Amino acid sequence: MKNLVGAALLGQSGGPTSVINASAAGVFLEALKQENITEVYGAVHGIKGILHEDFYDMKQEDPAELMLLKNTPSSAIGSVRYKMKNIKVDDSEYQRLLEVFKKYNIRYFFYNGGNDSMDTCNKISKFLKKSGYDCNVMGVPKTIDNDLNATDHSPGYASAAKYVATTLMELYHDATVYDTPQVTIVEIMGRNAGWLTAAAALAQSKGQGPDLVYLPEIPFDFDDFFVHVQRVIAQKGKCIVAVSEGIKTKDGKYIPELFADLKKDAFGHAQLGGTAQVLAEEVGKRTKVKVRAIEFSLLQRSAAHLASKVDVEEAFNSGKKAVQAAVRGTTDKMVGFKRISSNPYKMKYVLLPLKLAANTEQKVPLEWILPDGKGMTQDYIDYALPLIQGESKAKLVDGLPRFAKLKKIRVPKK
Amino acid sequence: MKNLVGAALLGQSGGPTSVINASAAGVFLEALKQENITEVYGAVHGIKGILHEDFYDMKQEDPAELMLLKNTPSSAIGSVRYKMKNIKVDDSEYQRLLEVFKKYNIRYFFYNGGNDSMDTCNKISKFLKKSGYDCNVMGVPKTIDNDLNATDHSPGYASAAKYVATTLMELYHDATVYDTPQVTIVEIMGRNAGWLTAAAALAQSKGQGPDLVYLPEIPFDFDDFFVHVQRVIAQKGKCIVAVSEGIKTKDGKYIPELFADLKKDAFGHAQLGGTAQVLAEEVGKRTKVKVRAIEFSLLQRSAAHLASKVDVEEAFNSGKKAVQAAVRGTTDKMVGFKRISSNPYKMKYVLLPLKLAANTEQKVPLEWILPDGKGMTQDYIDYALPLIQGESKAKLVDGLPRFAKLKKIRVPKK
Repeated sequence: MKNLVGAALLGQSGGPTSVINASAAGVFLEALKQENITEVYGAVHGIKGILHEDFYDMKQEDPAELMLLKNTPSSAIGSVRYKMKNIKVDDSEYQRLLEVFKKYNIRYFFYNGGNDSMDTCNKISKFLKKSGYDCNVMGVPKTIDNDLNATDHSPGYASAAKYVATTLMELYHDATVYDTPQVTIVEIMGRNAGWLTAAAALAQSKGQGPDLVYLPEIPFDFDDFFVHVQRVIAQKGKCIVAVSEGIKTKDGKYIPELFADLKKDAFGHAQLGGTAQVLAEEVGKRTKVKVRAIEFSLLQRSAAHLASKVDVEEAFNSGKKAVQAAVRGTTDKMVGFKRISSNPYKMKYVLLPLKLAANTEQKVPLEWILPDGKGMTQDYIDYALPLIQGESKAKLVDGLPRFAKLKKIRVPKK
Repeated sequence: MKNLVGAALLGQSGGPTSVINASAAGVFLEALKQENITEVYGAVHGIKGILHEDFYDMKQEDPAELMLLKNTPSSAIGSVRYKMKNIKVDDSEYQRLLEVFKKYNIRYFFYNGGNDSMDTCNKISKFLKKSGYDCNVMGVPKTIDNDLNATDHSPGYASAAKYVATTLMELYHDATVYDTPQVTIVEIMGRNAGWLTAAAALAQSKGQGPDLVYLPEIPFDFDDFFVHVQRVIAQKGKCIVAVSEGIKTKDGKYIPELFADLKKDAFGHAQLGGTAQVLAEEVGKRTKVKVRAIEFSLLQRSAAHLASKVDVEEAFNSGKKAVQAAVRGTTDKMVGFKRISSNPYKMKYVLLPLKLAANTEQKVPLEWILPDGKGMTQDYIDYALPLIQGESKAKLVDGLPRFAKLKKIRVPKK
């Protein structure tokens, strides 16, 4: 337990979410309050900003604007997808980082991201310790994919899930409006873990969701899928399907890959397009039914206007608690969530060893996934429903969201 | 002016919107109050429902559920895209309709839709009059395309415009998050009129919108477009483009058609996919920059959670006023909006001859469109901003919208 005095630095990393800035607001506003924290910096584009000594001076921001970050989507100080060099082969990037930390007297380091980012954070934490440089390192969780290990859930997931469920309910109304047969295939993010696609079951639980739901945890069989689509069409005239972008066959082939070969034979070139589009094309070829593919794309991770209040508050508090813990002397930990009960929803913040969250993926339990694309069990609904409660969004000016506008003043290079 | 006593019938027609059910709520709830209206029917899938004597009995619905229609997206009683036979060649469908109207004593007919639907409504109105059958026929406007003639704007437009502007502001945050070059091309509905794409300028007016905006009113030149994209990339590293699905070259070719020929030469098959996707592919081929296509698809016309209060109220009142006017003896008219002033926003409801709205398209004034994809003039902003004000949405149950659930009890066939 060291009572460190020095600068605090936050980096945002990986794919942004609706609430990653809420965590940033939590870190910045709490850090600005702490006597032991002399400066508050934001790394411009995460690790890259550190390696380039490129920081924003958060002390020069209006605290009211920092508070607006709570409801501003995406990563306000810039994100990055950057894999540091393997420290065992070449530790030059780590040495450079240490040099920068020393130069700016950075004694508190916060990294906000998902699996890969926690891996980076973990490695930095271990390196700094080994180097004898006193710095409290804290991970702040974030991912719409909800696949961070050891925590009940991660900030960003609930808001994206609320977007998925709400939008699917609205699409259900639109996609069933004509008396002609129609297949609508909706693609939802999640390369390996189907948590976000599972949120389609929340719409189903209201009787206004997709007919079929496919997660990447279960091997995908096109012929079987097609039988189910035809069956739904025969019964109802319409079929709405929610698929994870990451569904793959038992041989590990993604859908665009699966039909790329077919396409190459027939037309001499590789198939382009996403999972839903390729599925829609294949269903269209085999039926006379109108088929439409819809991709939620970046919308599902930036729709701050539809954020869950639970999510925004938990994201904000994660940032705040990371700072408080670090100032108390904690290091090498990630803030995580431990669920006490679902109904009523009770959760407590816990501090998890960084290495637990680093680079491991928590997938959807197989026993929560119903067979034949039917959706999810009640266990999933009970798990997810408390997370999407309430609303928290930017106030409207001229009928449009008033997002934070930061001055983004650079820290002079030393 | 005839004081008719009999049944009222509403049909919903064409592409649904976030607020077409608000108009239905206005019609149903007002009709249920009127002494001269003996029955209140909803035509199942518009004209098709009439031809098949397929009606819902709205008197059997709970009025509280009918009120929830105000915030329920899409067409609750089913929509249709159906072109009646040319009356000059074959009037059998019109005769059938007359027969059904007589059988069910339908004396008030309301049709809620866009250009094509108003054309149908106009023809029915003229036919019934010529046939000497007393029935007051009223059009209720609806279209996200905002291209109905003679009215300042149409219900459905404002909510879709609010969706477009809000979502583009959110995408702006997401699409600028990395320090690597990126082009994001967003496709917005509107086959011939660019009103909805113009709403991108509302996001631009907040400094958080696309860099380039292309409407179908201006012939599209790919080479010129590509020069502009490259210029923005050189200046800012990122480029966000909003395009109408209906942009076409000066020779009248849509974008997928334009590059279909190229594709056929090279790969022997026709290009699939939408305007944004094809543009993204072409930009991708010519640059090393990451390019992403996003289609708002059905989301933009069903996002009731983001509806404008002004729009919801105007849609509801349009339905209500159509009934009130019809009961007063008005026929052969469409409810329209006449703007008194924009700031403060003042509008009055007017009754326009149905033939004025029938089948004519009101496009965006060319003088409102800035050259070189720069967006729109202040005139457009002044026009559109009052329309997207306020919020009106379904209350949340379990964090999800509680949409109307109708019993949908069929009227027994006579």
